[in-house]
Amino acid sequence: MNDNRPVGVFDSGLGGLTVLKEICKLLPNENLIYLGDTARVPYGSKSRETIIRYAKNNIKFLSSHNVKMVVVACNTASAYALPELLENECPVIGVVEGGVEAALKYGRCKWLRVGVIGTEATINSMAYTNELYKVRPGCKVITKACPLFVPLVEEGWVDKDITKMVAEEYLASFRGEVDCLILGCTHYPMLKGVISKTVGKQVRLIDSAKQTANLVKMFLLKHGLIKSQDSSKGEIKFFVTDSPKRSLEVSNRMLSGINLKYSGLVDIGP
Amino acid sequence: MNDNRPVGVFDSGLGGLTVLKEICKLLPNENLIYLGDTARVPYGSKSRETIIRYAKNNIKFLSSHNVKMVVVACNTASAYALPELLENECPVIGVVEGGVEAALKYGRCKWLRVGVIGTEATINSMAYTNELYKVRPGCKVITKACPLFVPLVEEGWVDKDITKMVAEEYLASFRGEVDCLILGCTHYPMLKGVISKTVGKQVRLIDSAKQTANLVKMFLLKHGLIKSQDSSKGEIKFFVTDSPKRSLEVSNRMLSGINLKYSGLVDIGP
Repeated sequence: MNDNRPVGVFDSGLGGLTVLKEICKLLPNENLIYLGDTARVPYGSKSRETIIRYAKNNIKFLSSHNVKMVVVACNTASAYALPELLENECPVIGVVEGGVEAALKYGRCKWLRVGVIGTEATINSMAYTNELYKVRPGCKVITKACPLFVPLVEEGWVDKDITKMVAEEYLASFRGEVDCLILGCTHYPMLKGVISKTVGKQVRLIDSAKQTANLVKMFLLKHGLIKSQDSSKGEIKFFVTDSPKRSLEVSNRMLSGINLKYSGLVDIGP
Repeated sequence: MNDNRPVGVFDSGLGGLTVLKEICKLLPNENLIYLGDTARVPYGSKSRETIIRYAKNNIKFLSSHNVKMVVVACNTASAYALPELLENECPVIGVVEGGVEAALKYGRCKWLRVGVIGTEATINSMAYTNELYKVRPGCKVITKACPLFVPLVEEGWVDKDITKMVAEEYLASFRGEVDCLILGCTHYPMLKGVISKTVGKQVRLIDSAKQTANLVKMFLLKHGLIKSQDSSKGEIKFFVTDSPKRSLEVSNRMLSGINLKYSGLVDIGP
């Protein structure tokens, strides 16, 4: 059984392109549609109700493009909205599950000690903590919201002394206390160098993009939804809700080697 | 002639409450309606088109409450959207004009040297520069976008070493080069201490809230729109587009001594 419909991927902005890239590498034949809600970014400082409303808007838009499944490539939306989105007709997976699975791989021992960092909303949602407790009751979880990390990445200050000081402020209490650290925001992998130096090199840093791509593949295989493998290379469509000028620069930088076709500015409010 | 209709005030978030507070102090009898577009904050990293669309949505909402004028208490929206908003039926004033007028007060000499800091959008718009050139051709204007200042204020890090380093990074080139510095973002007055130490105490820091309140008063007087002065104290209504929980905490802190009545969560999209 084959299914040529596209896989939909959305994020509050462009960070989710890291997830799109991994899906594209693992499943190069699949057609993909990306939606970046750049007119309403960021989600991480907004309320649960608003995040759920935005996520539903995004899924409605992707559904209108006849997607066979939706990947919520945004930690904040995954953390808050996923339970609400599962009622949807279209299958939906988020990035929390992938992050947690990857953490379990690196900590097979009983006394798993995991750190989680993310936006204020992601951390307040307790989504990672609850998911970890569910699969590994009794594990130790330490969490911390790091709201300055995203603007530092966007300023391009990934290796400045200022960034090291901010990392020290947020992460000093993780040192010696965790064996792995879930980077619960798609921007954070850009700060891997500084984060690793701060928490110690023995702490594994977990970026859920690859694991999420694996989950997408497993889901498509399990449900007979894979696109015909002898078909041509997949097409990637790219939509944003704010003016595309800056988005196209960022996306080309982030997706080096992967061609995506800018498909339009969409209005998905309110 | 008296006019008891309210004055509308909007901002992308809650920073504009500093302007509301000054209006309230200067015109305590006026009825005021504040709208904070907290579901779509920040505007400073968005495109001109989106900022104009949001500003029009906000004015439409305030107009539905029969306001006699609108104050755009947001630098980014004032910088980009004001020319488009002037076509509106309802009179509109922004904060750029007040900031520029205040700068002129402090620099009466011919060779006025002004610094302007703000969000990326405010600085890119050239609104302050153009306004300054218009009233004082040949003056020297230096501008700089400071995108990390807002998240630093929101993190409450107004006097940390990190903040001093960020200020040094953004503002070192202003030292000795300007006589006054327009704080072109409603969050920046919270960093006055650090900013002043960085640029030098002889540089006047200009916060447009007071001057904007003066312009509102002058406008109302000139057009016979002042509310009857022997009437009771004005009522302040407060609307937000995202969940009010956090907004109410922030607004009560910012408006100490001024009572405002939370009036509802509104949906003004798309």
